[in-house]
Amino acid sequence: LERSVILVAGGSGARFGGPTPKQFLLLQGKPLLCWSIEAFYRYDPSLQIIVVLPRPNLDSWSVLCKAHRFHVPHELTAGGQERFHSVRNGMAHVPHNGLVAVHDGVRPLVSSALIERCFDHAGTHHTAIPVVPISSSVRQILGAGESTALLRSALRAVQTPQCFDAALLRSALELPYDASLTDEATLVERTGEKVHLVDGEERNIKVTSAQDLVLAEQLLAQ
Amino acid sequence: LERSVILVAGGSGARFGGPTPKQFLLLQGKPLLCWSIEAFYRYDPSLQIIVVLPRPNLDSWSVLCKAHRFHVPHELTAGGQERFHSVRNGMAHVPHNGLVAVHDGVRPLVSSALIERCFDHAGTHHTAIPVVPISSSVRQILGAGESTALLRSALRAVQTPQCFDAALLRSALELPYDASLTDEATLVERTGEKVHLVDGEERNIKVTSAQDLVLAEQLLAQ
Repeated sequence: LERSVILVAGGSGARFGGPTPKQFLLLQGKPLLCWSIEAFYRYDPSLQIIVVLPRPNLDSWSVLCKAHRFHVPHELTAGGQERFHSVRNGMAHVPHNGLVAVHDGVRPLVSSALIERCFDHAGTHHTAIPVVPISSSVRQILGAGESTALLRSALRAVQTPQCFDAALLRSALELPYDASLTDEATLVERTGEKVHLVDGEERNIKVTSAQDLVLAEQLLAQ
Repeated sequence: LERSVILVAGGSGARFGGPTPKQFLLLQGKPLLCWSIEAFYRYDPSLQIIVVLPRPNLDSWSVLCKAHRFHVPHELTAGGQERFHSVRNGMAHVPHNGLVAVHDGVRPLVSSALIERCFDHAGTHHTAIPVVPISSSVRQILGAGESTALLRSALRAVQTPQCFDAALLRSALELPYDASLTDEATLVERTGEKVHLVDGEERNIKVTSAQDLVLAEQLLAQ
């Protein structure tokens, strides 16, 4: 079965307050995005790796790759307005009807074991989404001044890589854009397909703040 | 209006894998619990401060206070089986029908502004619970193999201090223990009272892992 990963690195880094897009921030001296690409290359060097970057960052990415002597082969494409459009642009590079993983470019610590688990389960169940328990109590806003407690033990935080039958993801991306769908699992559910959950990893953090970067450094040091 | 805070520090520290209860771990050389107590003392030196500790830790706490020359006045009481029972033991020390805040002993970075906001809103609305947005996509398990996406923009992570009319919290604690209620807000809702939400603080983290401790050090350094 042919397999691809689309690494989505569309963020502008605005939350860091600095001019560096967060996928280019350095973790142990190497850009976050390099870590994420290497994680998939390490898992399977024959995997098709597609990286989606905002158009204004394409040039600096090639400069960064040279500076860091980063030679892992990958295809590059420009992102769109929202994540949905970026994934769609990435999918245009997938020529097969095998399996496709969509991964956050800023989750540098994903393990080969987790990538394998996601592809394996997607091979059987058509979808595979890694999830972890949620540590805090959660409430749901119902309306003005109204909210309700959710049963914490029934909640899961969603991670990536989210893996799908390529044909399934492709048809999900043909439906109209909806801003309330914050991951690919919810996109695919719109086609009527059931989402299959697998165990994620606590280490597989999304680096979206300077604090997360410090945490990632710590996790690597362990 | 008379006011008290119950600092709940019942955890055994098992998640750190070490013998030190997590509330005694050092943040910038000072036990976490000292930071939390000081935050409330700084807000209002006349506030009644009640600290609930597991019975086996009461002795080492007094040793720690001497070693760190920690002299902020507080009342001490032994915790119970679960958080519910610990809060109930703490409430037995509250002599008034004013306002009571319940705060995690391992949230050392709570600000005076947040404490004030919670007490103020509880004075008007009978309850005040600090909440912050949730950064990851969340799914809810419905049953075997079934789950559904929740609308992330409607979700909030719950923090402490959770503030209540003392009489309200007292009557909530008279109802039978239920393991599914993971915070005091859900306890109080059982009485029929509506829970009022206020803006929490990203900095107001709960330190429950060695990684959180590193993050707290970083937040303090900023």
